[in-house]
Amino acid sequence: MGIVLGDNRYGKAETRLVRVTRRDGHHELRDLNVSIALSGDFEAVHLRGDNASVLPTDSQKNTVYALAAEAPVGEVEEFALRLARHFVATSGPVRRAVARVEEFGWARISVAGAPHPHAFRRDGSERRVAVVTCEAGVAWVVSGLDDLVVLKTTGSEFHGFARDRYTTLEETRDRILATAVTARWLHRAPEANWAESFAESRRALLETFAGHHSLSLQQTLYEMGRALLEGRPEVAEVRLTMPNRHHFAVDLAPFGLANDGEVFFAADRPYGLIEGTVRRDDAPAAPAWVWEV
Amino acid sequence: MGIVLGDNRYGKAETRLVRVTRRDGHHELRDLNVSIALSGDFEAVHLRGDNASVLPTDSQKNTVYALAAEAPVGEVEEFALRLARHFVATSGPVRRAVARVEEFGWARISVAGAPHPHAFRRDGSERRVAVVTCEAGVAWVVSGLDDLVVLKTTGSEFHGFARDRYTTLEETRDRILATAVTARWLHRAPEANWAESFAESRRALLETFAGHHSLSLQQTLYEMGRALLEGRPEVAEVRLTMPNRHHFAVDLAPFGLANDGEVFFAADRPYGLIEGTVRRDDAPAAPAWVWEV
Amino acid sequence: MGIVLGDNRYGKAETRLVRVTRRDGHHELRDLNVSIALSGDFEAVHLRGDNASVLPTDSQKNTVYALAAEAPVGEVEEFALRLARHFVATSGPVRRAVARVEEFGWARISVAGAPHPHAFRRDGSERRVAVVTCEAGVAWVVSGLDDLVVLKTTGSEFHGFARDRYTTLEETRDRILATAVTARWLHRAPEANWAESFAESRRALLETFAGHHSLSLQQTLYEMGRALLEGRPEVAEVRLTMPNRHHFAVDLAPFGLANDGEVFFAADRPYGLIEGTVRRDDAPAAPAWVWEV
Amino acid sequence: MGIVLGDNRYGKAETRLVRVTRRDGHHELRDLNVSIALSGDFEAVHLRGDNASVLPTDSQKNTVYALAAEAPVGEVEEFALRLARHFVATSGPVRRAVARVEEFGWARISVAGAPHPHAFRRDGSERRVAVVTCEAGVAWVVSGLDDLVVLKTTGSEFHGFARDRYTTLEETRDRILATAVTARWLHRAPEANWAESFAESRRALLETFAGHHSLSLQQTLYEMGRALLEGRPEVAEVRLTMPNRHHFAVDLAPFGLANDGEVFFAADRPYGLIEGTVRRDDAPAAPAWVWEV
Repeated sequence: MGIVLGDNRYGKAETRLVRVTRRDGHHELRDLNVSIALSGDFEAVHLRGDNASVLPTDSQKNTVYALAAEAPVGEVEEFALRLARHFVATSGPVRRAVARVEEFGWARISVAGAPHPHAFRRDGSERRVAVVTCEAGVAWVVSGLDDLVVLKTTGSEFHGFARDRYTTLEETRDRILATAVTARWLHRAPEANWAESFAESRRALLETFAGHHSLSLQQTLYEMGRALLEGRPEVAEVRLTMPNRHHFAVDLAPFGLANDGEVFFAADRPYGLIEGTVRRDDAPAAPAWVWEV
Repeated sequence: MGIVLGDNRYGKAETRLVRVTRRDGHHELRDLNVSIALSGDFEAVHLRGDNASVLPTDSQKNTVYALAAEAPVGEVEEFALRLARHFVATSGPVRRAVARVEEFGWARISVAGAPHPHAFRRDGSERRVAVVTCEAGVAWVVSGLDDLVVLKTTGSEFHGFARDRYTTLEETRDRILATAVTARWLHRAPEANWAESFAESRRALLETFAGHHSLSLQQTLYEMGRALLEGRPEVAEVRLTMPNRHHFAVDLAPFGLANDGEVFFAADRPYGLIEGTVRRDDAPAAPAWVWEV
Repeated sequence: MGIVLGDNRYGKAETRLVRVTRRDGHHELRDLNVSIALSGDFEAVHLRGDNASVLPTDSQKNTVYALAAEAPVGEVEEFALRLARHFVATSGPVRRAVARVEEFGWARISVAGAPHPHAFRRDGSERRVAVVTCEAGVAWVVSGLDDLVVLKTTGSEFHGFARDRYTTLEETRDRILATAVTARWLHRAPEANWAESFAESRRALLETFAGHHSLSLQQTLYEMGRALLEGRPEVAEVRLTMPNRHHFAVDLAPFGLANDGEVFFAADRPYGLIEGTVRRDDAPAAPAWVWEV
Repeated sequence: MGIVLGDNRYGKAETRLVRVTRRDGHHELRDLNVSIALSGDFEAVHLRGDNASVLPTDSQKNTVYALAAEAPVGEVEEFALRLARHFVATSGPVRRAVARVEEFGWARISVAGAPHPHAFRRDGSERRVAVVTCEAGVAWVVSGLDDLVVLKTTGSEFHGFARDRYTTLEETRDRILATAVTARWLHRAPEANWAESFAESRRALLETFAGHHSLSLQQTLYEMGRALLEGRPEVAEVRLTMPNRHHFAVDLAPFGLANDGEVFFAADRPYGLIEGTVRRDDAPAAPAWVWEV
């Protein structure tokens, strides 16, 4: 019986890059968090501490900054593609490179009704994300978003569920439904109109959450994924993680007050956690590790 | 030499209240985090464990929900006033009550271009805050906001500073200026048009940050406070806390690249921390504890 | 082309359970965070909102508390096994159940040199973790720990690495090595002396980190995994995630001071991230989803 | 009516310093987080952007590292004293300097039963803190700790409390009492045996929490402060902040199970928040701003 090295990867995580583009006093601002993970022929370093094949993570950080300087970063998918392809192309031992680019949103500050040319405010806690995996001659692009927090005050029911000896939950025909969506979707090919694709995918998720009458969060999740796929032919598969952020109606009867769905306690823990995949039946299966982000 | 009880207070912190108002299918949503702190004649409980004067924090939580049910919460200042006055009026031992109401922003989800009547998304990480301190017959109202993150890509210099033997910083005529504003302002009286007052105060802070050419973050802070006071006669004093979130230009020379203010590293720690007060010279001094929030 | 449901699961996450066992005034304390995830025949709820097969996550929460009441929780692996097996055995549509049990450590407060019978203090931020996956007639047990933060002030080198046009890092023969270990190891069978197995596995990780002279963090990771496998025949495979928490020697030359490895800046971001697997070559491969935790 | 500058201060916050002392292969490790705040004659910078009196926060960061290199840091109180006195002595406009030093605990890794000479593991999330305020010729030293999390499974009652129309809480003769102590204590003079003073003060807090039979958290707080003062004549005043981390007994009756104080739900929010001061009646009052930390 021997002991061997299994799957492994390494890289620089969370390089914080702010890229400004200046055009005649009008500035564009991009605020990114970039992580790289490389895998390949790295047995020597693990088994013997031989670093000859190891490009330092410090160099990877430098590469993020240098590539951002050499050309505009473009959409997050484009920058992730450039980075991942760079490492596969230039580092011999690297068989696979993953580049994860997270973007923080900023809006221009409005001054006297007009957007300011170089002053901004952070716009929300939601982040747009792209994760690109490259091997020689092939690339998979996953787009997505983190922490899109949504809530509907009605249009959500939950009843007819299974009951066992530990079930005490009452059925409801009207409840608050709230979640923080983490979404990832895999593109059929590593090229697309990334800006439009993201904007429309996000719109499909949001509008479906709002418009769909929900009988369970699972159903809502499926409908959101389906709407995205139906609207975006370039997308092969959608993965959604949606915690059920429970809002409990407060019992006001002890105080002689009614509560007709108006006063709620927003609970922290525990929470339901719903995870699901919606995909095309003719889409070729992507390797499992494409989703390892 | 004896040992005695000094300043003390107690209360329920972070009661999470979501209040829905339903009008013919059109819903309003308010998402609040409410904290209460009571002080007064509480020596018996500290010294002897005699709880006779102690209204449980659980009752305070119930009060938050009951008062939210009995009437619309209104602006955060109004709800904080109702709560703080309630405890002073109804609990004998309470000499002073502080109510802190923090509000999370939500925007309606747009569906086919129209705002949805009952579906919302979280709008930013910024929070509006009101802190009301009441004693018998008197109330102080502090309004404010937390975590207003702003950044300007130019219009900021820093030079001509003092130098000592540990100074290595180079002067700059053009830098990124970024901060997360925590602002509090004290009203002259416990009544105002709270909605307008907040919106215009926030606008003054934002527009001044954007428009002011900065020679130091201290100067920017002062100008922001001054603009707020000049625009809002109902405000007596402004306190601002502004961390200097450093963005360092990356040295790209080793890679044969220039960096004309385009590629930056956003640092986490350490950071400068600038705190300052701007006030009217004829405003009566508020008790120090009004600001203990 | 059709759209179909892919992989999915649901459950109650982060049920916070504190279990006290009282024996003649001597109390035992267990502080757990329990998450359940169920998968199986759940197409109806996703596609049609038919909840008939859905055991509410609220019932799962109740089950955590009820099973903790019916018998002592035992080691985290035992409690996770009981929970996961329960859901597979009692819920028809459930084909697979995952129970994740995280434990917070507490130590008895020492009073006059003796451990107190019922008063405790939290002991560290490190958490012990067990993740059990069950299907009918089969169970996989993964043990592990989160956030074991370690640092060595010497005994770590990094040189001889690959260089490209973006490499500026200098070689070092002596550096601080610091990381926060996340470790998971898969047992060959769902039975073991869990307490001893965990204690000895943790000891192997710690002692190897301390005693191994490191030429790279990858080498240290491999040695830690190997030591665990060599000491614990019941373990088939080890997965380690180890961020490289950089400590940079401060350049004190501008102040006329030397820095012989004594004064360091502890950086937050970016950080290296090293992930690796060490396994027995004769161990049967576990399904990939056993590690989806 | 004019607008004027009020209280203000500035400095470098959260400089992360790791200091190693090497003695014949046996290393000492100190892990500190240092924040500086300076106030004085700083009207010019606020009103006119004139930085001539402003020592950059970057220089303050350098000073932290340089002073740590010039001599061992010593106890956190000593290092904070050195830093605060340095800025008052060397920077003309500075009238008052505050140095806050937070220390993270590390324990030696045990290898084969013996403490390792240069390998360590983080020991808990609790932090020791010193805050020193200096003016010309005078210094105040506040010691303390953050996030000392403690819990007792019995020895805590809560009954006989006030009731109003919103009170529904039931009385209890036996409950879990849990809190995360934030403690600060002011020394009579800026010199003491800091190591012993801290260790014994912490011991007094811990042993009193454990040993005192509690009728309310307020009473426990007072007893903890009193014990510290009684044991440490060099301390003038103690301030304690103690959230009441509620642990609710789970109702198991629906499942036909009893719950004799054995199964609890640990709640996140809301929580009670108890704040109090215990002091000597003959201690001269320290300026309020000594506690502004």
